[in-house]
Amino acid sequence: MPITVVGSIAYDAVKTPFGERERMLGGAAVHFALAASFFEEVLVVGPVGDDFGESELEVMRRRGVDVSDVERVSGGKTFFWRGEYGWDLNSRETLDTQLGVFEGFQPKLSARSRESDVLFLANILPDLQLEVRGQLPDARFVALDSMNLWIDIARDQLVKAIESVDCLILNDAELRQLTGKPNLVSAAREILSWGPKVIVAKQGEYGAALVTNEGFFALPAYPMENVIDPTGAGDTFAGGFVGYIAAHPGEVLSDEMLRRAMAHGTALASFNVEEFGTERIERLTGDEIAARVDELHAITRFSGAPLQLRG
Amino acid sequence: MPITVVGSIAYDAVKTPFGERERMLGGAAVHFALAASFFEEVLVVGPVGDDFGESELEVMRRRGVDVSDVERVSGGKTFFWRGEYGWDLNSRETLDTQLGVFEGFQPKLSARSRESDVLFLANILPDLQLEVRGQLPDARFVALDSMNLWIDIARDQLVKAIESVDCLILNDAELRQLTGKPNLVSAAREILSWGPKVIVAKQGEYGAALVTNEGFFALPAYPMENVIDPTGAGDTFAGGFVGYIAAHPGEVLSDEMLRRAMAHGTALASFNVEEFGTERIERLTGDEIAARVDELHAITRFSGAPLQLRG
Repeated sequence: MPITVVGSIAYDAVKTPFGERERMLGGAAVHFALAASFFEEVLVVGPVGDDFGESELEVMRRRGVDVSDVERVSGGKTFFWRGEYGWDLNSRETLDTQLGVFEGFQPKLSARSRESDVLFLANILPDLQLEVRGQLPDARFVALDSMNLWIDIARDQLVKAIESVDCLILNDAELRQLTGKPNLVSAAREILSWGPKVIVAKQGEYGAALVTNEGFFALPAYPMENVIDPTGAGDTFAGGFVGYIAAHPGEVLSDEMLRRAMAHGTALASFNVEEFGTERIERLTGDEIAARVDELHAITRFSGAPLQLRG
Repeated sequence: MPITVVGSIAYDAVKTPFGERERMLGGAAVHFALAASFFEEVLVVGPVGDDFGESELEVMRRRGVDVSDVERVSGGKTFFWRGEYGWDLNSRETLDTQLGVFEGFQPKLSARSRESDVLFLANILPDLQLEVRGQLPDARFVALDSMNLWIDIARDQLVKAIESVDCLILNDAELRQLTGKPNLVSAAREILSWGPKVIVAKQGEYGAALVTNEGFFALPAYPMENVIDPTGAGDTFAGGFVGYIAAHPGEVLSDEMLRRAMAHGTALASFNVEEFGTERIERLTGDEIAARVDELHAITRFSGAPLQLRG
């Protein structure tokens, strides 16, 4: 089932302890689309400026991504973000954000984009997420990402947007902030009571956790000795996770299936951080993904041999 | 095989968002011993003062712990720690530390304590750890814990102590601090090159990771909705981990066995945080531990159904 993603298409300037890039392809919708493209056809909806290059569109087209709903705003500039990561890559500082064409962005979905059965609302203004969600009333699976900024300044609208979707994918700390509950399980359960059936907590280098009404699942990140650039890892995870679900239209959203989706998201994210921006994912193969899912399985399994305990 | 543990026996004053205790039984050796007592006989070596109660010794005796090497220092006061946890229990502030009899502590091991095949060197001065390790030259498995303080003020001695053991159990952040390597896998590999065969990184609410020359394993923490007091969770984990290994004298230190040990440590730690201090572990049963290990298995397993990926 085709997937529509609405979100940012950007140029990123990134500095990490291992190097830097002055102007590389980025944005939530781009990272998501490239990852999800391994599972289904993806349609990207988002604005770019006059400065956006044909070669960047070509990066997406080469992965079969439909970019016909990428809107080129005449006289506008593409969203730009500049950030720098600390020594352990767990902290980052935003040095510059230029919204450009993202300011005043009104998503325009073509008939084809509205026909997708799966929708990913990447991190944008909650009101826009709600508006887009309304344009795909019959979508079988809708997932949403957001950020601390919207919890701070537009919480009510964000809660409305979350109430309208099937799945919330959010950073661990943001789930706690959103609910005011310091405990992850309690926070996730509260959000389940708002409507979504699936909550995914992204935990950075510690992996990700899944909370549904059926149960709980946690998967560590793939252990990496050489993380080069974490930018886009969360959206790449989301692309693998949502993509896997989209590729299984006949299956109900069982915990079994969602767990496999988590593994594929985790595998994709681990490749993303191996190089800057989209560089690694651009030349990734399906076989590499499958092999890493197998490795994830191998590093997390244990057998529960029964033991006679004392007392 | 009996286990000897050398470390602190303490009174703790703890405040968490869920309550407080003014004077409860604590200390690394106590938490370790109670947890390990589910697997093997445990011998505790450590000092207490005149103020240490018979009822606290009885807590350990009831779990079959041999306290005959608990040294009562006449005229001395038992080690005392006062701390307060933040709202999400991930940060804590030490408000008071009174070393008492721990100042100038010289471990005196009886012949019986020196005969154990398994030794746990809880967090104490690295020179003392090295000295005790030398008293059990033939121990089959020796594990060591430490803390940031010793990395700051006694790194050389700590490295010597680590070189002399089979297993290092340390907080994630401390492994990075110790090696100056921000990446967990790189940090662990460096320490493996010093001599230990097993590195365990404690990751608090995110669980724990195991690095050996054979491979990598990560296990999330058991998901808890009601964490009351994390004090002693790390030592309780160590007690379950080392205890499990001690209970399998015939097995080599295979990754398979170490993974099961990780699961038992994780299960024990999850019980520890359910109530203040040792309260929950005091009335824990072996069946409860076994059931939680099964639950850990259930929340971490996924099946890797093959999938035809695009590209």
